[in-house]
Amino acid sequence: MTSPVRLALLGCGTVGQEVVRLLHEQSADLTARIGAPLEIAGIAVRRLGRDRGDLPVDENLFTNDALGLIKRDDVDVVIEMVGGIEPARTWLVEALRGGKSVVTANKALLAEDGVALHEAAADGGGDLYYEASVAGAIPLLRPLRESLHGDRINRVTGIVNGTTNFILSAMDATGAGFAEALEEATALGYAEADPTADVEGFDAAAKAAILASLAFHTRVGAADVHREGITEVTAADMASAQAMGCTIKLLCIAARGVDSTGRETVSVRVHPAMIPRSHPLASVGDAFNAVFVEADAAGELMFYGRGAGGAPTASAVLGDVVAVSRNRLAGVRAASESAYADLAVRPMGEALTRYHVSLDVADRPGVLASVASVFARHDVSIATVRQGSAGGPAGRGGAELVIVTHVAPDAALAATVGELRGLDIVRSVTSVLRVEGDA
Amino acid sequence: MTSPVRLALLGCGTVGQEVVRLLHEQSADLTARIGAPLEIAGIAVRRLGRDRGDLPVDENLFTNDALGLIKRDDVDVVIEMVGGIEPARTWLVEALRGGKSVVTANKALLAEDGVALHEAAADGGGDLYYEASVAGAIPLLRPLRESLHGDRINRVTGIVNGTTNFILSAMDATGAGFAEALEEATALGYAEADPTADVEGFDAAAKAAILASLAFHTRVGAADVHREGITEVTAADMASAQAMGCTIKLLCIAARGVDSTGRETVSVRVHPAMIPRSHPLASVGDAFNAVFVEADAAGELMFYGRGAGGAPTASAVLGDVVAVSRNRLAGVRAASESAYADLAVRPMGEALTRYHVSLDVADRPGVLASVASVFARHDVSIATVRQGSAGGPAGRGGAELVIVTHVAPDAALAATVGELRGLDIVRSVTSVLRVEGDA
Repeated sequence: MTSPVRLALLGCGTVGQEVVRLLHEQSADLTARIGAPLEIAGIAVRRLGRDRGDLPVDENLFTNDALGLIKRDDVDVVIEMVGGIEPARTWLVEALRGGKSVVTANKALLAEDGVALHEAAADGGGDLYYEASVAGAIPLLRPLRESLHGDRINRVTGIVNGTTNFILSAMDATGAGFAEALEEATALGYAEADPTADVEGFDAAAKAAILASLAFHTRVGAADVHREGITEVTAADMASAQAMGCTIKLLCIAARGVDSTGRETVSVRVHPAMIPRSHPLASVGDAFNAVFVEADAAGELMFYGRGAGGAPTASAVLGDVVAVSRNRLAGVRAASESAYADLAVRPMGEALTRYHVSLDVADRPGVLASVASVFARHDVSIATVRQGSAGGPAGRGGAELVIVTHVAPDAALAATVGELRGLDIVRSVTSVLRVEGDA
Repeated sequence: MTSPVRLALLGCGTVGQEVVRLLHEQSADLTARIGAPLEIAGIAVRRLGRDRGDLPVDENLFTNDALGLIKRDDVDVVIEMVGGIEPARTWLVEALRGGKSVVTANKALLAEDGVALHEAAADGGGDLYYEASVAGAIPLLRPLRESLHGDRINRVTGIVNGTTNFILSAMDATGAGFAEALEEATALGYAEADPTADVEGFDAAAKAAILASLAFHTRVGAADVHREGITEVTAADMASAQAMGCTIKLLCIAARGVDSTGRETVSVRVHPAMIPRSHPLASVGDAFNAVFVEADAAGELMFYGRGAGGAPTASAVLGDVVAVSRNRLAGVRAASESAYADLAVRPMGEALTRYHVSLDVADRPGVLASVASVFARHDVSIATVRQGSAGGPAGRGGAELVIVTHVAPDAALAATVGELRGLDIVRSVTSVLRVEGDA
């Protein structure tokens, strides 16, 4: 019998407990797939003696000395399920430098300082795997970092945050406003007590950075990602989207482009956007995740599944554990970080987007001409205009004007809206949303 | 500069030409991703001197001596894009035994004699990759053989044949019959002149065998797959499906189960089935492919994209070429075939399915009781019954009876239908279809 691969688990919350359970239940299968048994060397937790239910594991394996556990000679693979920047960074750099392989679900750390982790892995000669960091159980990173390596990816568009997708799906289905839908999500356990990381788009932005890095062979960090959350999406916005045959999703978008000097760039952004109901991402409901990939030769691909939760995340973690364990037994390492393309990250103002703008305007002749001239002044081309009847939502002597633009630099679109707000004939700008897909 | 990885291409049809083009266009990127350039050592074709348009490749590389090319010492990787059993098998076994790595899209050969290929690969020490053999460009085999290795897959349900999906989607959209929809598919280039392999389900059955082997760590061959095509699906069947809120798809299904002795088994089958419109596979239209995976911890996953065509298939082939080239440079091999579970393949009669049955019956009291007693006699439990009005499609003094069963062994369902056909009160069985998903 080959000697076991020994695991150090950092953290024993929802995901950690599922990992322990699966290690126990699937023990025979995992051994057969790896060619050696997996054995838990220790589990680092913050507080010892806490009740962890009926976990099938020896109490003596728990320790509150994470660093001590990581440094032990009999540990081969470190599994980090703690999250956050510190102490996770210190622990993982220590593990990797010491030649351990690391499996982590820590998107925030990877987006903040992935370079330090990749460098430490290269130094130590172990593997760094992180499938669980983006879109939970959906096998996504391995396809991006392996299957599509013979192709050229042009765009990745994803719904990668379950909380916000639950909220927006509820707003779409019931007409509720953001606050009301958030309350429902919290009550049902889909939103945390402090939902900031989700609803302000920080979580999605970290995942966008990881996806963009892999898709474009370029180091993209959280700071490179333009980020807008969903707290300002209103019931009126959703109604506008529905009137256009669209819905609103919080999208992470990483797109290849060319700047004014002809240099290849990548733009990476997270923001709410209208997408047509016919788009495959539109029907991704509840807390599900999905990522849509456009590549030169492969065409359009979509990956769909559960993006969060203990069991789905544990599935992704264990898939990585099997892979790094096999690599250790074979005495090999997976391919290192691929960042050769080193594309420049294009600022949001230069990203090409489309806007949907609803205006409450004075109901008199010449209004459309005045509004259209503002768009023209900023070189923004209008795709469609719809003028609502006087009986429409604007009411009180006003009229509703709904404009959808063609693609233009985001800065030009923002400046156009800014100038519209200052026009006498515009009583208010009732909704501004970006539009993705061919609406 | 590292010395190049040298490729032998077998076949230069639609896929081969795309591979040549991509090798040329993506040359710099492929070199960076692999760490060495790729170089074409030769291209084996049946007829030399045929016009191959503007292919960016030296005419002298073409040869009609495939075996000679494969045996050359300066060839590292053999890419097979010829299809069929022979001479492909002889060539690939020769290449693998000689220590070459092989990338192939040949689903028929893998399903017919994958064991011979895997054994030859183990003998020679090279890699055998075949991502392009199932669902074209969709990264599916790598997720199954790596990402989900920490999980337990219970069921794989796929739409893996573009031609039949195009035909069934057209029948659904227009009400056309099979023959008419096939004609349209042929005219548009979605069906071959001889469509047998597609419409009779042979192509899907080969892919089902490959998927089942990977998902269940068990050798499953084409002969183990129960196969029914779509030639007998009628416009009336589609109308029945639509009346139930369903559509009809040609599904490949590989499912884990337990036989009467408590032994774990797997059943693998390809047949048309009704699925509810709310099922993610129902909206997979045109010639697209999608595979739905259900796993213990990961839950439900779906992979979607283009299943055929020169460029998508070439994307999958090149992704594999990058992987095997990297492995060669690192002096390693990917994990071998995983067949440790060795589950018994359960015959179709024991597979658990549900039936939808439409009957044209005599319109008189007691008919339902007689029909129901036939189901009871075979231990088949009825889920829903709908009796059509006399003005319904049955007409002429008859009535329509539509029955959907609960899950039962397929043999019991088939025997039930057989007995119904013999009942006096049953004027005809107008439609029999299996039902998948919670309809």
